[in-house]
Amino acid sequence: MLDCAIIGGGPAGLTAGLYTTRGGLDNVTMFEKGMPGGQITMSSEIENYPGATGHISGMDLMIPWPEQCQRFGLKHEMSEVSRVSRNEDGTFSILKSDGSIDKAKSVIVCTGSAPKRAGFIGEDVYFGRGVSTCATCDGFFYKNKEVAVIGGGDTALEEALYLAKICTKVYLIHRRDTFRSAPSTIERVKNSPNIELIVNAVPEEVIGDKMGVTGIRIALKSGEIRQIDIPGVFVFVGNNVNNQVLIQEDGSFLCDMTQWGEVKVDLSMKTSISGLFAAGDMRESAPKQVVCAAGDGAVAALQAIAYVDGHH
Amino acid sequence: MLDCAIIGGGPAGLTAGLYTTRGGLDNVTMFEKGMPGGQITMSSEIENYPGATGHISGMDLMIPWPEQCQRFGLKHEMSEVSRVSRNEDGTFSILKSDGSIDKAKSVIVCTGSAPKRAGFIGEDVYFGRGVSTCATCDGFFYKNKEVAVIGGGDTALEEALYLAKICTKVYLIHRRDTFRSAPSTIERVKNSPNIELIVNAVPEEVIGDKMGVTGIRIALKSGEIRQIDIPGVFVFVGNNVNNQVLIQEDGSFLCDMTQWGEVKVDLSMKTSISGLFAAGDMRESAPKQVVCAAGDGAVAALQAIAYVDGHH
Repeated sequence: MLDCAIIGGGPAGLTAGLYTTRGGLDNVTMFEKGMPGGQITMSSEIENYPGATGHISGMDLMIPWPEQCQRFGLKHEMSEVSRVSRNEDGTFSILKSDGSIDKAKSVIVCTGSAPKRAGFIGEDVYFGRGVSTCATCDGFFYKNKEVAVIGGGDTALEEALYLAKICTKVYLIHRRDTFRSAPSTIERVKNSPNIELIVNAVPEEVIGDKMGVTGIRIALKSGEIRQIDIPGVFVFVGNNVNNQVLIQEDGSFLCDMTQWGEVKVDLSMKTSISGLFAAGDMRESAPKQVVCAAGDGAVAALQAIAYVDGHH
Repeated sequence: MLDCAIIGGGPAGLTAGLYTTRGGLDNVTMFEKGMPGGQITMSSEIENYPGATGHISGMDLMIPWPEQCQRFGLKHEMSEVSRVSRNEDGTFSILKSDGSIDKAKSVIVCTGSAPKRAGFIGEDVYFGRGVSTCATCDGFFYKNKEVAVIGGGDTALEEALYLAKICTKVYLIHRRDTFRSAPSTIERVKNSPNIELIVNAVPEEVIGDKMGVTGIRIALKSGEIRQIDIPGVFVFVGNNVNNQVLIQEDGSFLCDMTQWGEVKVDLSMKTSISGLFAAGDMRESAPKQVVCAAGDGAVAALQAIAYVDGHH
């Protein structure tokens, strides 16, 4: 029986591992089928993790974390978790994809989320080298430059507004001519002098060189192809929350979720189920920043310690 | 008119400064009368800030932060803020102790909190070198050692339970013979085989050498003096939230507060007043960890950017 099972090995999971083990839980396993570190390891540069200065990549940032976090006894198991469920006695079962089951007194779920890809040519090749899915993370790298934003929903418009304060110009490329967002947000976008709307338009290809993105080719409804020279393309066409492990045999979720499939939490990262905590990009209102995910992991861990201490 | 005024220069304030300026707000000032860095700079060692490895002090940890956070245009003003108030037009006034006033479109308050001191001899001399006010932070440094806990409230008992899982023995020293805590918590403390209660007892003096604390002298109600050899003393006799800047001329608080004087916030660090955000140790349910305060600062900053963008 594990004191705590941590599902996911990004910044939230690693920090949860650090705090649970350093806080005295003896038997903690982090389940992460790949290398620990999370999505940020795909970023070519990060400059907003406090204390990490100089030109460092997401991979550079995360390299010391596993050792630091495992120093106090955290175990890393390279297994894929299929499902977390709750037993009648209040403990949890961790079903793995090989069919085996571990049991745990408490669970911290931090499986993150994955931005959807738009599907144009070059999107994967240039991801992290000019193609981004996070304006907060990468917008500043395009200060006083021009960028394109792909999408027409709430996030796309809000991120376009964020980028418009940093960049000289934002091309907002949307496949329809109407936007799915709050009227006030649409109004602000339309009133922004440095946002150019390119509607009824689909990105065909991002082009670039060894240094990264140099431009984008857009197919217009008219059949025309328009090419814009820009060093950055931001894609906001939706987000998949990695919540599969919480889906039960009957199709319901283990705990309360938002309409977007994020886990509902309070300030202590408690979910609607005692002993189950969530942390990082998969929880509601997540700002999707490394330092925030790490903070969540610490909070969830302290709560898990108190829970295990109080119930067993 | 400032886009954003940040009150306080610890991990929350510095990170808020990094995220607001890097996110495109042009005119942001952090008001901190002393050196930026916050309470953690008094700690002799920190090993739970993710990514910061090796034997580093709180001061070592914080040294690179101001430069990193000011690189994007954050201004640091070494003034003491007396009061933050809201003007009729929705902007804020920042009254400084020299009587001058700055105006700001948004405010992030992150003035922290200060654990109360118990008042025994040697408490200040050995603070950070054996005397601690945070079990989460420093408990692990006493793994398999004996420690003393001073206090009899909720926090003292919970922290004693936390330490009991890490340390071989915890002496819980309390001036009364009854505890102000949940009955279940008191029960768990009494049932912990490695917690020894020393009640009706007042710590007189912490003794030590160049390396730090070596013991504590306790005055018992009987008049007897008991000396215990221990390397660590944890003091939990209350916490002062630094909320003075939120007190208005009529004595009321600018925004909704908890009964303990902490600022009420939601997951986005929004307070009950539009445009006013709180971050770090002064907000409700704060875990009082550097990584959590920094995460709060980032969240509050992103919200402040959206607020300024939407309202002006």
